[in-house]
Order: sequence, then structure tokens, then C-alpha cells
Amino acid sequence: MKEIMAVVRLNKMNQTKKALTGAGVNGFYAHEAFGRGKGLVSSDLLEGAKEGFEEAVELLGEKGRLYSKRVVTVVVPDDQVSDVVEAIIKVNQTGKPGDGKIFVTAVPEAHRVRTAEHGDKAIL
Amino acid sequence: MKEIMAVVRLNKMNQTKKALTGAGVNGFYAHEAFGRGKGLVSSDLLEGAKEGFEEAVELLGEKGRLYSKRVVTVVVPDDQVSDVVEAIIKVNQTGKPGDGKIFVTAVPEAHRVRTAEHGDKAIL
Amino acid sequence: MKEIMAVVRLNKMNQTKKALTGAGVNGFYAHEAFGRGKGLVSSDLLEGAKEGFEEAVELLGEKGRLYSKRVVTVVVPDDQVSDVVEAIIKVNQTGKPGDGKIFVTAVPEAHRVRTAEHGDKAIL
Repeated sequence: MKEIMAVVRLNKMNQTKKALTGAGVNGFYAHEAFGRGKGLVSSDLLEGAKEGFEEAVELLGEKGRLYSKRVVTVVVPDDQVSDVVEAIIKVNQTGKPGDGKIFVTAVPEAHRVRTAEHGDKAIL
Repeated sequence: MKEIMAVVRLNKMNQTKKALTGAGVNGFYAHEAFGRGKGLVSSDLLEGAKEGFEEAVELLGEKGRLYSKRVVTVVVPDDQVSDVVEAIIKVNQTGKPGDGKIFVTAVPEAHRVRTAEHGDKAIL
Repeated sequence: MKEIMAVVRLNKMNQTKKALTGAGVNGFYAHEAFGRGKGLVSSDLLEGAKEGFEEAVELLGEKGRLYSKRVVTVVVPDDQVSDVVEAIIKVNQTGKPGDGKIFVTAVPEAHRVRTAEHGDKAIL
């Protein structure tokens, strides 16, 4: 099994979710993050500060400002990795800085809590 | 060393924390996430939208709605993995969808910042 | 490539960001987390509860209270790992409990969404 961690724009979450479903992914998790590639100023950060997001406020006065992003995590069987990566790139590629990155790592062990199944059965 | 990442229900965090302590885990981290297994509608998401959580609002009109979850991360020596996984399953297994998943990955290197210790000493 | 995941104090985020830039890191992501090492009571948690952070409220009455932390994630080429780890330790080491931990894991595959570049080219 492999974990695919994709850092994407906030406004690409719905398309990313649909792309994952289209690529046969049954489950995924997403969380909020702040980050940067090249340090451009982000309107998302300005919004975050307005909403009182502490980190946004703290970072707003600094060089190398951070973007508000979503990190999407899925765990899939090895033979599904290239399809899922391709599907994520397809809906997130605008050609502009901030399109995000995808990291793939090994997951030797997985468990489904409900049934205590493990291995590939835990994620299918 | 191994990283154990468990996706659990919000209302299981305290029991999970106690289970980890009971299994001899000294430190752990948790973060908020949204996710889904089988795409059922979640009352947590409705609550998130009410609280103004941007992603909850955005996703509420979509198919395959997302659940609010907690992701708990611990790093333990190899010989502690099966005890910790078992302890997490024990307190989180209700038999209903949404009980969560547990992923185990290799962590070849760890450092404790306070002392600059590394290896197993960094996590014990 | 390696992923370096550092758990640091909230008030060390700016220094950590500068340290990463100084160590030649072009991109990174950070997210909020709650955690503990030795279970001391945290003023951050009290603040989190005041701000209505649900988990903070839930955990405030419990033993082994959790700290509000930031988790910083970077992916770098193998030969940059020791410099980045050293740079993070340097700015985060106060000698007091709660200085945080650093975990290093293997990332065999990375993609830059904007260009579909992969491998080391995706992160440089």
C-alpha cells in the first residue's frame, strides 16, 4: 500500500474529491494547512487573518508569506497509485505557482477499526 | 521506530488518549481532519458548517459528504506497535461505519529537540 | 527524498520558517495540532478553550492535558536532511519540556502539480 499526500488549493477540494471518487478511491482525509512554494503573498492568508486565524495574523507581517492550503491524504493499493496521482494532477494543474505537490510514501500496515481487518482489505 | 496514524471519531479522543497512556505511549499529536469512508452524511459536518468552518460549508451541498475526524499520530519503538494498534482498536470499535483506520509506517530517524537525542532515545 | 516532520511551539513558527529558508528549503507546510510529551498543563490549551476550540474544551478537564503545537512538514533531497534538522533544533531548543520532536521518513516519489515534474525536480 502507498499513502498519497496531495497539497492542493482550497478551491480545488471539490474537484479533487470528485477526481478521487472517479479514480476508485473509497476513503480519504483532508486537513487545513498553511504553506508556501515561492513565498508570494496570498489573499487566502489575508482572509485567514480577518477570520482571526492566529497563525495568519502572526505571519502576515513577515516575508515569505504562507498560503492556506488543503492536504488530502489517501492510502491505496500499489497498482492504483499512478491513476490517483494522474487524476489529482489533472484537476489541480492551472500552470500557476501554488498548484501544489504530491508525495507518495510506503504504508506497510493498515487496519480497519470497525472489523479489525488488516492489509489491503482494510482500505478496499 | 514506527509511526502509527489513527483516524478516529471526535468523541473517541479522550478514550483514545487514555488507551495510548495505558499502552505506555509517552507522547502523541492530534489534528482535525475531514474525511469519509463510504460517503454517509455526517452530523459533524452540519455542526462544522454552523460554526462557520469553511470547508464544511463548501462541501455540504455535495455528494459524498465528509466527516469531521481526529487524526492521532504517535511514534513508537517497533516492539510496541501491535500493543498500541490493539489498544486503539479496542476503544474505537463500535461496529458502525466511521470507526476509522490505522496506518503504520517506518520512521528511520527521530530527534528530541530539547536534548538533541536521536533514535529510540528521542521517543522514550 | 525525505520528509522531515517537526512538531514545534506556536511561538517558534516564525523562527522555524526563517531557519528553513536559511537552510535552503523552498517550500513547506504547517498545520495546527494538539499534543503532549509529559502531560504538563498548557496555557495554550486554556487559550484554545477560551477561543471555543472544541477539542481544547473537551480535554481541559482531563489528566494529561494537551499542548497546542504546530507541525511543520518539508520534503528535501537526502543530502539536505542533516542541515535542515540541525537548523530546526537550533531555533527550537530552549531546554524546557515541549521543545518538540523531529521525525524523518522516506519519500520515494514526489510530483509538482504545476509542471507534472517528478523526483527531486519536483521539490527543488
